[in-house]
Amino acid sequence: MSSNPELQQTFAGIARHERKPSVDAKAVQAFPNSRKIHVQGSRDDIRVPMREIRCSDTPTASGSEKNSPVTVYDTSGPYTDPAVAIDIRRGLDGIRDNWISERGDTEQLDALTSVYGRRRLNDGKLAELRFGPQRLPRRAMEGRNVTQMHYARQGIITPEMEFIAIRENQRLDECREQGLLKRHEGQPLGARLPAEITPEFVRSEVAAGRAIIPANINHPETEPMIIGRNFLVKINANIGNSAVTSSIGEEVEKMTWATRWGADTVMDLSTGRNIHETREWIIRNSPVPIGTVPIYQALEKVDGKAEELTWEIYRDTLIEQAEQGVDYFTIHAGVRLAYIPLTADRVTGIVSRGGSIMAKWCLAHHRESFLYTRFEEICEIMKAYDVAFSLGDGLRPGSIADACDAAQYAELETLGELTQTAWKHDVQVMIEGPGHVPMHLVRENMEKELASCAEAPFYTLGPLTTDIAPGYDHITSAIGAAMIGWYGTAMLCYVTPKEHLGLPDKDDVKDGIIAYKIAAHAADLAKGHPAAQVRDNALSKARFEFRWEDQFNLSLDPDKAREFHDETLPKQAHKVAHFCSMCGPNFCSMKITQDVRDYAKQQGLENMKEVISKGLDDKAQEFSRHGGEIYSKI
Amino acid sequence: MSSNPELQQTFAGIARHERKPSVDAKAVQAFPNSRKIHVQGSRDDIRVPMREIRCSDTPTASGSEKNSPVTVYDTSGPYTDPAVAIDIRRGLDGIRDNWISERGDTEQLDALTSVYGRRRLNDGKLAELRFGPQRLPRRAMEGRNVTQMHYARQGIITPEMEFIAIRENQRLDECREQGLLKRHEGQPLGARLPAEITPEFVRSEVAAGRAIIPANINHPETEPMIIGRNFLVKINANIGNSAVTSSIGEEVEKMTWATRWGADTVMDLSTGRNIHETREWIIRNSPVPIGTVPIYQALEKVDGKAEELTWEIYRDTLIEQAEQGVDYFTIHAGVRLAYIPLTADRVTGIVSRGGSIMAKWCLAHHRESFLYTRFEEICEIMKAYDVAFSLGDGLRPGSIADACDAAQYAELETLGELTQTAWKHDVQVMIEGPGHVPMHLVRENMEKELASCAEAPFYTLGPLTTDIAPGYDHITSAIGAAMIGWYGTAMLCYVTPKEHLGLPDKDDVKDGIIAYKIAAHAADLAKGHPAAQVRDNALSKARFEFRWEDQFNLSLDPDKAREFHDETLPKQAHKVAHFCSMCGPNFCSMKITQDVRDYAKQQGLENMKEVISKGLDDKAQEFSRHGGEIYSKI
Repeated sequence: MSSNPELQQTFAGIARHERKPSVDAKAVQAFPNSRKIHVQGSRDDIRVPMREIRCSDTPTASGSEKNSPVTVYDTSGPYTDPAVAIDIRRGLDGIRDNWISERGDTEQLDALTSVYGRRRLNDGKLAELRFGPQRLPRRAMEGRNVTQMHYARQGIITPEMEFIAIRENQRLDECREQGLLKRHEGQPLGARLPAEITPEFVRSEVAAGRAIIPANINHPETEPMIIGRNFLVKINANIGNSAVTSSIGEEVEKMTWATRWGADTVMDLSTGRNIHETREWIIRNSPVPIGTVPIYQALEKVDGKAEELTWEIYRDTLIEQAEQGVDYFTIHAGVRLAYIPLTADRVTGIVSRGGSIMAKWCLAHHRESFLYTRFEEICEIMKAYDVAFSLGDGLRPGSIADACDAAQYAELETLGELTQTAWKHDVQVMIEGPGHVPMHLVRENMEKELASCAEAPFYTLGPLTTDIAPGYDHITSAIGAAMIGWYGTAMLCYVTPKEHLGLPDKDDVKDGIIAYKIAAHAADLAKGHPAAQVRDNALSKARFEFRWEDQFNLSLDPDKAREFHDETLPKQAHKVAHFCSMCGPNFCSMKITQDVRDYAKQQGLENMKEVISKGLDDKAQEFSRHGGEIYSKI
Repeated sequence: MSSNPELQQTFAGIARHERKPSVDAKAVQAFPNSRKIHVQGSRDDIRVPMREIRCSDTPTASGSEKNSPVTVYDTSGPYTDPAVAIDIRRGLDGIRDNWISERGDTEQLDALTSVYGRRRLNDGKLAELRFGPQRLPRRAMEGRNVTQMHYARQGIITPEMEFIAIRENQRLDECREQGLLKRHEGQPLGARLPAEITPEFVRSEVAAGRAIIPANINHPETEPMIIGRNFLVKINANIGNSAVTSSIGEEVEKMTWATRWGADTVMDLSTGRNIHETREWIIRNSPVPIGTVPIYQALEKVDGKAEELTWEIYRDTLIEQAEQGVDYFTIHAGVRLAYIPLTADRVTGIVSRGGSIMAKWCLAHHRESFLYTRFEEICEIMKAYDVAFSLGDGLRPGSIADACDAAQYAELETLGELTQTAWKHDVQVMIEGPGHVPMHLVRENMEKELASCAEAPFYTLGPLTTDIAPGYDHITSAIGAAMIGWYGTAMLCYVTPKEHLGLPDKDDVKDGIIAYKIAAHAADLAKGHPAAQVRDNALSKARFEFRWEDQFNLSLDPDKAREFHDETLPKQAHKVAHFCSMCGPNFCSMKITQDVRDYAKQQGLENMKEVISKGLDDKAQEFSRHGGEIYSKI
């Protein structure tokens, strides 16, 4: 056993995963009454994972009524598949390996390209920390462009696109049964949700730049997903250690934990020691796309001195991370020198880490940043690995007072200009957005993004709708996130309860994710996504029929729902009881309503309507005779 | 010591209050760095309580910069006033006693009017349970009307109205300083927030029916507050025991706990034993208006058999509760016989308890409910004590699938008709609303309410914006609540994390309240309420300047904010550290921004803008020369 304490922690994390399934290893247990299913595409190796939740029957007077199982979008990867043996020291299988190699436009390199990457690999002291199997990176062949956008613009439907079409469509049959396919009335700001997502629709959206598929050729383990406003709203969870706290093992565990609860992508924002090694562990074990902010690591390489950053160090960092398999890079190329003074009178100045680093660099050198001046060179790197841009909002507002000011919107204009440059190279782009925005200005943010950035997908942090609730910013921001998701934001970056106060632990990660799954789903409902309401309907039917277990199992967090019910009514018998804890056995509105319904049936509904209608005329006359005299009677 | 176990629990609750201040008695401690202040009105006995939060100085290069204290709306009553000795066995002082008696339109009765009330009083077995000091009720003199609406319509500005004007205005001077008084751009649907709330404005809003002041003459302990869309958005917390669980002591404690965290009104929804005695304890100790749903107790009186309810039992219950001091009654008079069949095909039928009770009664008797037919008689009771109507939405949707259907809107029309009837009697009215509503239909709910009910204040439960998150419905509903609050809902009824699953405990009550304080405040910001942003600005400035203690103290929940910060950076030194736990000492965006600002000052901001502007022309040319060749260099 190693004497390195950090490594010991890593192994402790691994050990937790090996005790599978056990009470402690919740992240690798299947969900209750759920099974992993795979929907087959046009070829054997397109197998789209979904979670199917079984429901019990409804007892009725005329026997049992079946309730269809509900399939839900599943981001948890092989961790919840009992058929797959998980070993995080080995990593996940590369389900996209064949798709990437058969395209014949990439080559496997003999060695890492990045100088820094090679140095870490050759550092014997890091051997114990390092992820085990060393893989050689792939890169586009000379002159080739391997982005999904490039394929899309050539008219090619990749396996990734077909996978996504199946994944986004999963509840279509159930929607048809429930007559939900016509529910499209809520779409704001020109969204175009089709009744059925076809592979061709996926291709066309990617070609138009309205959606991106973050899928680095060096991250074949990822299960393809799409970010665009004409698809389901996605959420991102941030993880990452810092100089102050947390270890590699914890971060890998947070990643599996985050995807279990529904993170569609994960950003590794590590800033402490061993960023390179931490990232490798995360990517090799991640079934979802991984994003990073490369400037954080570049800054570590110059000991935190922003003014010492150079294009050469940054470029080497991009290549280092691209060859590990990072799927999208946050790049704050819109922080232009002229915009920096616009922040001087703000209440909270520049709150983006990347933005403030670049601002400091710009001022120290009195020049435009290399992120802006070298942007086309960055595009060349992105298209050689298919890394997507997440154009960072380095000047986003950090408070309600600073929302929607000149600095924020000036940067947004520049992000639009850079989007056009990236698209010239067929490089995929999404646009990061705020931050802190009062509700009445949320829609304006979406409108300006669509106009400035030619409908490139918007990816917002919240926004927080007030500043006064540190400790609850998952809620202040879920409000803004749900609204901006409805207006058309494609991905919502979560905020945890620890925002502004500390680093999130596993509980905070889960709380942040559930709050954002709520926001994203509320947005899907409001946008009229055809598949969204099936789960609501199934859960509400279960609730109304006192199928408590089904209600728990259909919920976003079955563990919590069951735990809360247990607190008031712990016995198993209560899980099938026809009353709920709030009202007691004689006093349940749902029970009474069932009586009402039975009565209505007995009387014959149509007949009753007539009788009532007649009865009301009499009553109306009676009503007018009443009133005004009660105190004489007391 | 009594052998009655329920009473022992009650006394345990009392004992907790007596250990004041102590670590366990959080509900009666002053907030950190806060003091209770009273703003004097036009007469000595109008003393409006507020909480003043002191802030520390900002250290600058040229010495300390003062930060003004921030005053916040304070619902916690005398419990957080160290100058007041709390004894819940004695109850709070009746601050409105003089105002009520000097109007000369009420009389103190010799005995309780209610038959049931007298029976409980004469039941020796209840002596130990009963609240100690027996008070005799007041009632309007024969032929008099004692509602605040009646006074308002006579042109009378009551002390209650003046109190409210001061209370709503508290941060006006700070607003002026910060130039916030012009921030009115967000007001939707015709709201009219004046720059300054005058007593005359309060009067005119009450006279018009756009706002209500729930203030039963038998609840003189209440600190007057107003519910209307041209005022701060209010929140209600539900408490109450049930047949299954919880005791009187716990409920009194929940009430003080709820008002501590910001509940503007509290509804006692008890359905178990000893409802009458529980309510007396709550009212005598409550600084905020208390609402109830009298049909719950009436149902208890007929052993839970809805069909055995009678007008006589119900009327006696209204009088019983009015003479105890309940400030508003939820009355489901809009559940008309003809609307009941409209719910038969719903996914979740009738989910309102009151609605389903009345539906059952209507069907059993095949008649319109006595709540509808006797509505004018009810008005006579209301105006004799100044109890306000909260017209219940007995047919509100219980799921997304049922939102905005014919049953819901039919009932809303009837509530509008009943509003006109109540106003004929100068009785105050607010309208209850849903429930479960997807985001894109939230605004429609507000619009229909304004149109159907002639702008009577709307009082909504959430609404929940999705059904799929039991265990987190404080969040699913805070999203809907914030939005509908922005659109004009005057009071938001909270939802706790236990909704649909069990009875809330103290932690749940607090979680529900904080979520709703967030929603209400976000709505106030979006409506452009002149005073709202002062607190956000002060907190954000503290955050930016690393005044950690000020950030905690200015937040909605200082305890939680401090606890979360302690988890990552426990030492006291970190509370004044110029870095935060997320990034570590070398890497804080706020620190960097401060450097940027210092640099900008050194350079002379105006000068720098020019230099940059010139510099950019050069840069633009340079930029166009770059790109396209990186791979040749690797």
